[in-house]
Amino acid sequence: MSEFEAVVERVRERVDPTPDERAALAETVERLTDRAREAVTELDVDADVLQVGSTARGTWVAGDRDIDLFVRFPPDISREDLEAYGLQVGNAVLPEGREEYAEHPYVKGVFEGYDVDLVPCYRLDSATDIQSAVDRTPFHNAYLVERLDDNLAGDVRLFKQFLKGVGAYGSDLRTRGFSGYLTELLVVEYGEFRETLEAISEWEPQVRLDPEDHAAATFDDALVVVDPTDPERNVAAVVSDTNVARVIHHARAFLADPDEAVFEPDSPEPLDAAGVREHVERRGTTPLAVVFDAPDLVDDQLYPQLYRSRDGLVRGLEKRGFWVLRAATWADERAVLFAELEVAELSAVERHEGPPVYVSGHATGFYEKYADTDAYGPFVDGERYVVERERDVRTAREFAEDHLPDVALGAHVESIVERGDYEVLVGERVASLADEFGEELAGYFDPSA
Amino acid sequence: MSEFEAVVERVRERVDPTPDERAALAETVERLTDRAREAVTELDVDADVLQVGSTARGTWVAGDRDIDLFVRFPPDISREDLEAYGLQVGNAVLPEGREEYAEHPYVKGVFEGYDVDLVPCYRLDSATDIQSAVDRTPFHNAYLVERLDDNLAGDVRLFKQFLKGVGAYGSDLRTRGFSGYLTELLVVEYGEFRETLEAISEWEPQVRLDPEDHAAATFDDALVVVDPTDPERNVAAVVSDTNVARVIHHARAFLADPDEAVFEPDSPEPLDAAGVREHVERRGTTPLAVVFDAPDLVDDQLYPQLYRSRDGLVRGLEKRGFWVLRAATWADERAVLFAELEVAELSAVERHEGPPVYVSGHATGFYEKYADTDAYGPFVDGERYVVERERDVRTAREFAEDHLPDVALGAHVESIVERGDYEVLVGERVASLADEFGEELAGYFDPSA
Repeated sequence: MSEFEAVVERVRERVDPTPDERAALAETVERLTDRAREAVTELDVDADVLQVGSTARGTWVAGDRDIDLFVRFPPDISREDLEAYGLQVGNAVLPEGREEYAEHPYVKGVFEGYDVDLVPCYRLDSATDIQSAVDRTPFHNAYLVERLDDNLAGDVRLFKQFLKGVGAYGSDLRTRGFSGYLTELLVVEYGEFRETLEAISEWEPQVRLDPEDHAAATFDDALVVVDPTDPERNVAAVVSDTNVARVIHHARAFLADPDEAVFEPDSPEPLDAAGVREHVERRGTTPLAVVFDAPDLVDDQLYPQLYRSRDGLVRGLEKRGFWVLRAATWADERAVLFAELEVAELSAVERHEGPPVYVSGHATGFYEKYADTDAYGPFVDGERYVVERERDVRTAREFAEDHLPDVALGAHVESIVERGDYEVLVGERVASLADEFGEELAGYFDPSA
Repeated sequence: MSEFEAVVERVRERVDPTPDERAALAETVERLTDRAREAVTELDVDADVLQVGSTARGTWVAGDRDIDLFVRFPPDISREDLEAYGLQVGNAVLPEGREEYAEHPYVKGVFEGYDVDLVPCYRLDSATDIQSAVDRTPFHNAYLVERLDDNLAGDVRLFKQFLKGVGAYGSDLRTRGFSGYLTELLVVEYGEFRETLEAISEWEPQVRLDPEDHAAATFDDALVVVDPTDPERNVAAVVSDTNVARVIHHARAFLADPDEAVFEPDSPEPLDAAGVREHVERRGTTPLAVVFDAPDLVDDQLYPQLYRSRDGLVRGLEKRGFWVLRAATWADERAVLFAELEVAELSAVERHEGPPVYVSGHATGFYEKYADTDAYGPFVDGERYVVERERDVRTAREFAEDHLPDVALGAHVESIVERGDYEVLVGERVASLADEFGEELAGYFDPSA
């Protein structure tokens, strides 16, 4: 047996559900389905109940405990009725559950130890008629069920665990990785786990797959997988460029040197304050942290705002000459925008270029504006007027304290910043973040592919 | 009388030679010409003697004491004979003179208090037949003599003094300004002093003049004045972009507000060491000076090398992340390359981007090169591998001490630097330059258009 096969064999043992796990799940699903059907009979409408998701297709990784049940209503009922009926069924099946809102409301709850989503949708003839994203799910399910046998389902489990290990699994907006559906489509397209890795190791973005050869739109994402059930949709739209490259890297590395460790996510030993100080000292940088209470939002709303705020902070700093070595953002009770600067302090004056001397009105205006100030100049350099004037901001702290509201931030972060409800830590003071973000700091200071 | 006319009237009084000065000069020129003709009769060749330059055309500024006499030989004698005859005549006329070398040898000396150049050239029918640059001078002279009357000669004197005042007069390679010939051509083209300034105040580079409408080449200089005696030559080729813009600025400013001061070059009060320190403190910069004994070269060789070295220093610093606010170079007994930095010190690590992950051979090489070093990473960012590795140079001093030979320098400066015969001054230490370069430092720290 090759080393590749040996490693894969050992991983299979961990990710394949045991017969007992399968049986227990199947029984629970049956009981849930029965309860849902019973609740439907209370309604004056012709609805059916459908299990979807990885547990419906045998592609779940051992230990995952998610069950997705969809209740499909006829397309001629109103949206209001759909929502009302959906919640009625959901609350009947999961009396301890709570109502959640994606595109429309559904019920989430725990049943016999499983996490259950009970979701209403329309029963349609074609995925192109869908009214909301959940209507698409039954079509995805049907497409995959038809193409995945038990063997391929096992390869999906391996590939999922591989993606989990490298940190690229999950289409949530924090991870921006590969969804379950995308994972399964890739295995359907390429074949077994090994063939899937081989294909990925040769990806050169833009990568474009169109299993049904029916694309009806153009996409500029690094990875494009046209949805077999919707020619206008890229299943991989959410996947970040970094995650595409990361998966290419790990596919190539694992094929060259199969190492079981890649299937386990890194969980670095948290850094303590002294550890943070040691890295800052060694790196000779000036770290800057903007710290505030995390806004009360679900992750899919919170992280896009934090990413946007982090990028706005970086752009604002670089625009003023503070080159950022790297930046990050983390959230727990508090949230942090973190930027590590290459310089601590800039000169008191900065070069400010005016228009070319010959652009007469504009140039004269510039000259007169500065002629009697205490700026150095105006003088002529090349074809332009130039002055050396006092810089707005000489340190990153000044920027974070006085100019943060000027940069593009996520909406909730913006209102926090406008109220001034944040703290600025500079230099070794960021070490105090280790109490809450020791693991994130450990990952930051030990970055790997 | 308008303010413009009043100012110009006062300046005329200073720049117009008096009748006595004219008469004295004419007599000296006559005696010189006689001596030269006499020396020519000693030779077995048919040569004539021609006065050229500003004193031949009445365009010299009062007090200038330069006389240019050309001895024109028939084109059928050899270059060797021309040079031998030229020196023979020169030494006979100016027995105290010394031989100088431009494109070919000539004699330079003092005669009755005037600085005299006695230059041999060929007598040709057309300027396009010239064998060296000096052969062109008689054609320039003839062209101008035909077009400049006494009135326009007075306007040339005003315009010359104006250019001297703003620091843009002189086609030497230190100044890179307007030659006498170019100055006169512009007045011939535009008319009186006022019309010349008005035309210049409306220049929008690229400015293109072709008095004879015969250009036979393309030029990319900011100012192009096609030589009336040579369709392939731009008379303004040496003029820097900065000097073009500077002259536009001063023409516009003087027309808007005529101020006699513009006709006098700035000669700032030299700064002392305390004055330098005060500016450095106020500007919050990190100045860096590379100081060495000035190579023993004429200015037209020295300054191009110093400029090239200054630019090489700036590029080398900026390539390593040290942003340069401004740079300069000065020469006296010693020479200085001066660069004023916006930052004192950079982080110990720097970001180093590798190839896109998918460029497989190259990418794998990069990854393996850094995988087991103490660099941070490699990690994946966007589509690329990135490492954070130790920076070569954290301070400008380290750069100047260890990496100066890597940048493009002028040839003589390069050999000085390679021998290590230079001193590096950083921060307030540059104040010690004030002893030798107090005036240059004063100009540097009080830059004006």
